[in-house]
Amino acid sequence: MDKEGNRRLSGFQELWGSRMVQRERIMNSIIEGFHLFGFQPQVLPSLYLAESLEKGSGMGEKMIYHFHDHGDRHIGLKFDHTIPLRDFVERNFSNLSFPYKRYEVGNVWRADKPGKGRFREFAQMDVDIVGDDSVQADIEIASFIPIVMQKIGVDVTVRLNSRKILSGLAETGQVETENKQFAMFRAIDKFDKVGTDGVLRELEKYGFSKDILKLTKEYLNIKGSDDNVISELQGLVGSSKSGKEGVERMKQVMRVIRDSGYKDEQFVLDPSIARGLDYYTGIIIETRFNPDPTYGSICSGGRYDNFIHNPTSGYAPAVGVSIGVDRLLAAMESTNLLHSAVTNTKVAFINFGLDMLPEYSKLANSLRGLGISTEICQTDKKIKDQFGFINKSNIPFAIAYGPEEAAKEVVKVKNMSTSTEEEVKITDLPIFIQKKINE
Amino acid sequence: MDKEGNRRLSGFQELWGSRMVQRERIMNSIIEGFHLFGFQPQVLPSLYLAESLEKGSGMGEKMIYHFHDHGDRHIGLKFDHTIPLRDFVERNFSNLSFPYKRYEVGNVWRADKPGKGRFREFAQMDVDIVGDDSVQADIEIASFIPIVMQKIGVDVTVRLNSRKILSGLAETGQVETENKQFAMFRAIDKFDKVGTDGVLRELEKYGFSKDILKLTKEYLNIKGSDDNVISELQGLVGSSKSGKEGVERMKQVMRVIRDSGYKDEQFVLDPSIARGLDYYTGIIIETRFNPDPTYGSICSGGRYDNFIHNPTSGYAPAVGVSIGVDRLLAAMESTNLLHSAVTNTKVAFINFGLDMLPEYSKLANSLRGLGISTEICQTDKKIKDQFGFINKSNIPFAIAYGPEEAAKEVVKVKNMSTSTEEEVKITDLPIFIQKKINE
Repeated sequence: MDKEGNRRLSGFQELWGSRMVQRERIMNSIIEGFHLFGFQPQVLPSLYLAESLEKGSGMGEKMIYHFHDHGDRHIGLKFDHTIPLRDFVERNFSNLSFPYKRYEVGNVWRADKPGKGRFREFAQMDVDIVGDDSVQADIEIASFIPIVMQKIGVDVTVRLNSRKILSGLAETGQVETENKQFAMFRAIDKFDKVGTDGVLRELEKYGFSKDILKLTKEYLNIKGSDDNVISELQGLVGSSKSGKEGVERMKQVMRVIRDSGYKDEQFVLDPSIARGLDYYTGIIIETRFNPDPTYGSICSGGRYDNFIHNPTSGYAPAVGVSIGVDRLLAAMESTNLLHSAVTNTKVAFINFGLDMLPEYSKLANSLRGLGISTEICQTDKKIKDQFGFINKSNIPFAIAYGPEEAAKEVVKVKNMSTSTEEEVKITDLPIFIQKKINE
Repeated sequence: MDKEGNRRLSGFQELWGSRMVQRERIMNSIIEGFHLFGFQPQVLPSLYLAESLEKGSGMGEKMIYHFHDHGDRHIGLKFDHTIPLRDFVERNFSNLSFPYKRYEVGNVWRADKPGKGRFREFAQMDVDIVGDDSVQADIEIASFIPIVMQKIGVDVTVRLNSRKILSGLAETGQVETENKQFAMFRAIDKFDKVGTDGVLRELEKYGFSKDILKLTKEYLNIKGSDDNVISELQGLVGSSKSGKEGVERMKQVMRVIRDSGYKDEQFVLDPSIARGLDYYTGIIIETRFNPDPTYGSICSGGRYDNFIHNPTSGYAPAVGVSIGVDRLLAAMESTNLLHSAVTNTKVAFINFGLDMLPEYSKLANSLRGLGISTEICQTDKKIKDQFGFINKSNIPFAIAYGPEEAAKEVVKVKNMSTSTEEEVKITDLPIFIQKKINE
């Protein structure tokens, strides 16, 4: 318990009220976006044997919530949706048709230090294409992002690069071991936060040579049009096989995206993108939240071809991205893209007492039949206090139907924002309200 | 690991394919139903200090997943949504307006023995009204059920009773201690499974007297019209204060529901309903799945006025029900209310190669703009194999747009169920498909 005697654990969110209403709408819009691109829903367990979570994840034991269950099995809570996907695909390989295009929306847990915008339990929305190593899968997993974000009114830039290009850079600089290569990538990954000089200091700290620093600086300075970036990358890393392949593939990706009808500023080929995780093997993707680019990537991922075992031929290729809903929400909140008071409810009936309740119930159900969210004030409070509740709850319309109105077979509809009142025939109420809402 | 070397824990579901598509649609329809009645969304943490989960829950330690985290706090995974609601309301009492009408949809965990239709992780959809002890709240929490179930095409009967009536029965029979009363209620709760004789045997086993057995038999035999049930209950339990109050309240509940425009068979006042949990204090609710009544209740709950502490005045009254989604889904599956092959995707583009990809992407995005889920075949497979994939995936329309069609500025639309093909002008495609889907 904390100092107030509370039982709440830090790093865990309580979501409710207007913020939760908007969170739910945003998540639903994104899920509709997943459907539009033919991704199929999936839900996988939250609990796994700890050993299968840890295997090849690069996630330290300290970051995983793990424990022994009543059968003394060593269990862990999932910390992402990718490890469970690997587990699922490996066991169901023969039941799936490939490419397997799925999305998963759900909570993950990290026994992390909580902080501003960092939670121990948070929702992730993952999209993956498994069993397809084509350039087309790379393009699809990147090109759906701006459309989905547009649906929720968020302006983004999708930034693309390739781990193969980074490998090419490492090979050109003769960085030999995989561990040193990953250290180099992780240093470059900090570019957004620390700039070129910060990356170079980081590399120096890890003992990289002056030559590598010079090469990295040149690399990070590459910018301009696709053609320009591609030709400079070709010059810099093209002598390595991996670098050459990476540049060639990104050339194809950018060409198709440019010809698909997107706006130029929705995508950029950006050599400074590196991603922290070790398992990426091809395209890597980050998404800049344009209203405030300091917010870090709100949708990230890439190709991970050497991660999911294929029982017959080595590995199943895969590419995917993950949307961090709660970070996205925090970013939208801080840039005033969330509203302060939003409710789903459109209409509330003032309650004149239990005798009238069957009438309210009938009328409310007729509105609900048209898809209009309607509630009936619940208390025996004074009429004035009921209006106060409706006002505080931001419900746009209040309906008064008391003995006086019943005698005249009308209801009074009050528009709460304008404080104007109209008398409507009972039988006309559903159509009247529907028209008002659509105004 | 199990005998196949798998890493899957038993009692945990993997949801995907057609079943998952339908589960998602059903859950969304139910959530829309919650909105229609003015319930607001809420998401509360999955992890709590174990002591706060256990407090007054009646849930045995063996049923709770609990462990010590890295800070040596004793943590538990939530096993329902009611305990977290209590915790939330108690800490946020001064920030909430009452009645607080909320719903929560999410997973809960039980370290239970898994079995047919019993999982260790499953989704529950809870609806609660906190801070309102009125008969109207009782009515609302019951009356939304048939409407929500209608939305997903499930025929139900909502069965109502009151713990106060049961208390009245216990008082009439002079069952004195609370523990003995609860034992009596739990015996009656088994009525659906074991019948009157089974309940009486159970009572005998617990040492209840012949008189109690006789009284309970009389009580369980009460049936007929509302008026009849109410007058018989009045005769049987009305001498106790609690019994009298319970019968009077249920009389009001039934009268309002009957006058609200529901069909008679959607609600029944059923004295055999008792509910297993100890914390109920008033109305109790179970929902019979009419296509197969042996399935047990698919939406249950009741009033629990002595559970949530109110910092100023003792307790906050509350009433709520919970829908067990996965049980509902299992029931629908077994009665053929789920279809064998359902996808969200409506259209797939046959892929003639990378050069055509920008065209497919543009056309697909124009369909997506109309809300039509569209995918582009992903592989460099033969055309025949692509059709095979579309067929297997149950996607209703395939679109062929190759060099031949491009020259004529048309696409070929194949209806996969009828195997008929039509040639359509490219510019007419979106409207053509929209019409076909609405047919």
